[in-house]
Amino acid sequence: MNVSDAIRLKRAVREFKPEPLPAETIDAILNAGRRSQSSKNSQPWHFIAITDKTVLKRLSECGEWAGHLAGAALGVAILTPDPTAKFQTMFDAGQAAAFMQLAAWELGVGSCPASIYEPEKARQILEFPAELWLCIALSFGYPADSRSLSRLPQKGGRVDLKEIVHWNHW
Amino acid sequence: MNVSDAIRLKRAVREFKPEPLPAETIDAILNAGRRSQSSKNSQPWHFIAITDKTVLKRLSECGEWAGHLAGAALGVAILTPDPTAKFQTMFDAGQAAAFMQLAAWELGVGSCPASIYEPEKARQILEFPAELWLCIALSFGYPADSRSLSRLPQKGGRVDLKEIVHWNHW
Repeated sequence: MNVSDAIRLKRAVREFKPEPLPAETIDAILNAGRRSQSSKNSQPWHFIAITDKTVLKRLSECGEWAGHLAGAALGVAILTPDPTAKFQTMFDAGQAAAFMQLAAWELGVGSCPASIYEPEKARQILEFPAELWLCIALSFGYPADSRSLSRLPQKGGRVDLKEIVHWNHW
Repeated sequence: MNVSDAIRLKRAVREFKPEPLPAETIDAILNAGRRSQSSKNSQPWHFIAITDKTVLKRLSECGEWAGHLAGAALGVAILTPDPTAKFQTMFDAGQAAAFMQLAAWELGVGSCPASIYEPEKARQILEFPAELWLCIALSFGYPADSRSLSRLPQKGGRVDLKEIVHWNHW
């Protein structure tokens, strides 16, 4: 599958089959995040890869819309330095997340980001140090409905290009 | 080219051929950004697509390492709401930037992000409204050295997976 088709067809998946992901698939997903570019190659991330269902369930309770983590075969918590200190930090986390999710999609694995609105609760669950923050975790797993992985763009899904693109100035 | 190869081989490109990009290539790049997912599908971005060399030159002077914008065939300024208000904003901008850059790479087009450290100067150049911010602009163009677009991963480029991945907890 080429890149442009992946970008065009990939859909967020929030409901997963219970089956685990093969170790090589998990490795491929994490490696895609590791390979992502970052400001001055700072690689400002640690990834906590979570397959323990108890941990996933507890983490799913750290954000109002994070419930999909409970059913994921794999959760990836993206830890960063203080995200308010540099605008590049969350930008780079987003680039790494996009790479992980596209790489997963190519392997038939669905995914969705979850905002962690209770970072201190998450810190207690995952036991990461005070100098790191957790804003976003990703759910991964084989989609409960395999048709949900890909879909042709639908009307109303994204605004038209002409509404968001300006030429040479605003 | 499949997604995993694109992620593995893609390198940042900062020096470009002077030739312009075809309109359909620019459209494909912008569409990849438009198609990117965002928190609650908020699509929190406007893109200023810049091909005017005078504008690119002026924008390249808005950040210490933004010089590569001056030689780009296309610059894309990613405008967002106040990035300090929600951690999702720059995360989503990063996802859109990753999609644009991967889509460009597949078309033989190199790219690199530039941090805009002088946003008010950039605002005067691009004339965007006060409720929008500019933190990152992307350079695009055919690479001056076509070998710079792709390269096998080199030792020292990224830290090992085992240094950044933790299993189930820190």
